Amino acid sequence: MDYEKYLSARVKTLKASAIREMFKLMADPEIISLAGGSPDPSLFPAKELAQIAQEILTENPVCALQYGTTDGYAPFKEVATGRAAKVGCVAEGDKIIITTGEQQAIDLALKSFVNDGENVAVEEPSFVGTLNSIRAHNGKLVPVPMDSDGMNLEKFEEILNGTKIKMLYTIPTFQNPSGITMSAEKRKKLIDLAEKYDFLIIEDNPYGDLRFAGEDVPPVKSFDKMGRVFYCSSFSKILSPGMRLGYIVAPADVIDRIEIAKQANDVHTPVLTQMMAAEYVKRYDIEANIAKAREIYGRKCSFMLSCMEKYFPDGVTWTTPEGGLFIWCTAPAGTDIQAVLMEAIKNKVAFVAGNSFMVDQDKPCSSFRLNYSTMPEEKIEKGIKALGESLSKFVKQ
Amino acid sequence: MDYEKYLSARVKTLKASAIREMFKLMADPEIISLAGGSPDPSLFPAKELAQIAQEILTENPVCALQYGTTDGYAPFKEVATGRAAKVGCVAEGDKIIITTGEQQAIDLALKSFVNDGENVAVEEPSFVGTLNSIRAHNGKLVPVPMDSDGMNLEKFEEILNGTKIKMLYTIPTFQNPSGITMSAEKRKKLIDLAEKYDFLIIEDNPYGDLRFAGEDVPPVKSFDKMGRVFYCSSFSKILSPGMRLGYIVAPADVIDRIEIAKQANDVHTPVLTQMMAAEYVKRYDIEANIAKAREIYGRKCSFMLSCMEKYFPDGVTWTTPEGGLFIWCTAPAGTDIQAVLMEAIKNKVAFVAGNSFMVDQDKPCSSFRLNYSTMPEEKIEKGIKALGESLSKFVKQ
Repeated sequence: MDYEKYLSARVKTLKASAIREMFKLMADPEIISLAGGSPDPSLFPAKELAQIAQEILTENPVCALQYGTTDGYAPFKEVATGRAAKVGCVAEGDKIIITTGEQQAIDLALKSFVNDGENVAVEEPSFVGTLNSIRAHNGKLVPVPMDSDGMNLEKFEEILNGTKIKMLYTIPTFQNPSGITMSAEKRKKLIDLAEKYDFLIIEDNPYGDLRFAGEDVPPVKSFDKMGRVFYCSSFSKILSPGMRLGYIVAPADVIDRIEIAKQANDVHTPVLTQMMAAEYVKRYDIEANIAKAREIYGRKCSFMLSCMEKYFPDGVTWTTPEGGLFIWCTAPAGTDIQAVLMEAIKNKVAFVAGNSFMVDQDKPCSSFRLNYSTMPEEKIEKGIKALGESLSKFVKQ
Repeated sequence: MDYEKYLSARVKTLKASAIREMFKLMADPEIISLAGGSPDPSLFPAKELAQIAQEILTENPVCALQYGTTDGYAPFKEVATGRAAKVGCVAEGDKIIITTGEQQAIDLALKSFVNDGENVAVEEPSFVGTLNSIRAHNGKLVPVPMDSDGMNLEKFEEILNGTKIKMLYTIPTFQNPSGITMSAEKRKKLIDLAEKYDFLIIEDNPYGDLRFAGEDVPPVKSFDKMGRVFYCSSFSKILSPGMRLGYIVAPADVIDRIEIAKQANDVHTPVLTQMMAAEYVKRYDIEANIAKAREIYGRKCSFMLSCMEKYFPDGVTWTTPEGGLFIWCTAPAGTDIQAVLMEAIKNKVAFVAGNSFMVDQDKPCSSFRLNYSTMPEEKIEKGIKALGESLSKFVKQ
């Protein structure tokens, strides 16, 4: 049977995420993957979580194994509310929804607010998971170019003048894939634009805690007096991505709606992992963990940048992030990055080609994304060296 | 700010699930809830899972805590594939997607195949979670009446003659909320109708293992030669609902599509719970667990039925299920079930009013759903007695 003709319009155009497909390659233990966005596995507090899981399932098993509430396990909701409040994102009436990873928070916010064909503005490049989520809700992607201090707001205002934008999706801090952080000034200006042009904002902040240089910039949500910003964040980068724990802070009325949307999506997020995370935060100093992550990622980032200086051919440029997980590289226009990728994989190193992060994935793109958080330093050097050789074959000098 | 005007059409009409709202009531420990569909908590293998969780997080922590693959943890996929194969639902090329609870399997199948305004046929009454999921994808619900041996196929064919149906959603075994099981003959006929009228079928089978009377009937999917049936099932009723583990068996091309849709929804299902379930099935005899569940639910069902005989006023009728978790009761037409519910809650017993399970939730409905799996027997008796008293006030003799 040919299922294509039955497919809904909303999924027909979706392509498999290049990053998720890369995961399959990673089954080859010889491949050095600079493709994913996985935390350094040495940061997982495995021993502590083993003990906590055992205790929860011994002392409070019915709570862990029975159905839970859609909004989340109360003590974990408190933890998440506290983390958001710490960066100035106060949950109205302490209302928050725990989601099965932050991707679900973003997906439910889009599902609840984007009608077919409505325009959703995104930074270009942007996170492929959200681009696909917008496509899957029949939203129309409107790209906004980036400067070194975040979205180009002049260009955005030009767009706003000609096009009705329903929502903006932004990753203001250590943006994926660019590594760029939006300035505080631009964040304030964004709120003014939202008010003036009447749009809503989804703020995606999974990396905010991972600053290893420069000064913290408050979330866009912290400047929001009107309730236009829905703030999404995650425990993936500060505790464990495999546990799939995210959350959304938004006005109480919006939270009520997202709760209903979540009921029809996965009923609730698994309880055990929520209990484990809540108990971990209660017993241990998660800030010490985060400090360790910052130190490791800062070191690895510097190291990768120094390897790139050494091994990359002239003409390739890149961003210098102050935190997060990614470096965005750009080869001279016309470089065939897909060919570089094929060659690199032959050389046992993987990365993500830039076109994945574009609104129009078929447009030629000479950029690509590198991740420095996952691999140990000796593999970073080996990988960047191999990648440099692959690039040299295709970069026209 | 008034967020109503920004809401997407697809969620605007959604109401909070009465059952999920009931969960909040259950925080009152005095309330006897016959409302939910929760397993008997004595069935959770808590001690074994505590040991397994501890071992996994000690011996294989990176696998449990790092990002996983979207389709699921390979050994757990094998377990799920095996369970489906055992009832005649063979996964093409062993392809299967593990989902965050079965609700997500159904939701992703609908998202992938239902376009705005397309007709989705459902049994009436039907599971409120799926009704809302269909509404949330802008599907148009087309109710098909039920007989004591499943959907009325004559009525369904009349509908098919006048209306293009894209998909049918059915819970053929121990239907929620009616407790009805579709005959094998009707299941075969359904496949013929799907072929003749060119529609797809989502088969929802979370309760199939829980038969305590009569003979097993093979899933609709087991009769499907053409690949029109997408088979969804769950570990919620045989292991733990809080772990949120479901799966979908469908033709390989369809699985590929649903995998992409899941990437944009929650990336992947938490890994630890998948590993725990896989290891549990490997080490212990889950069939013995299921046999115990069958015995307990059979006993509780009989007991509840005998209490209903004793305490319910004349004129109230009900189904006699051969398995599953629910009894469907019908009071004489005109009985105000919402008023009965309010009175019952005052008397510290909760159930779900029948209109929740209807396509048109505002139409008067004198039916309601009872659950016998969750409460211990002394509370079942106390609850049914209180409910009988509440009913007597409103049933006109």
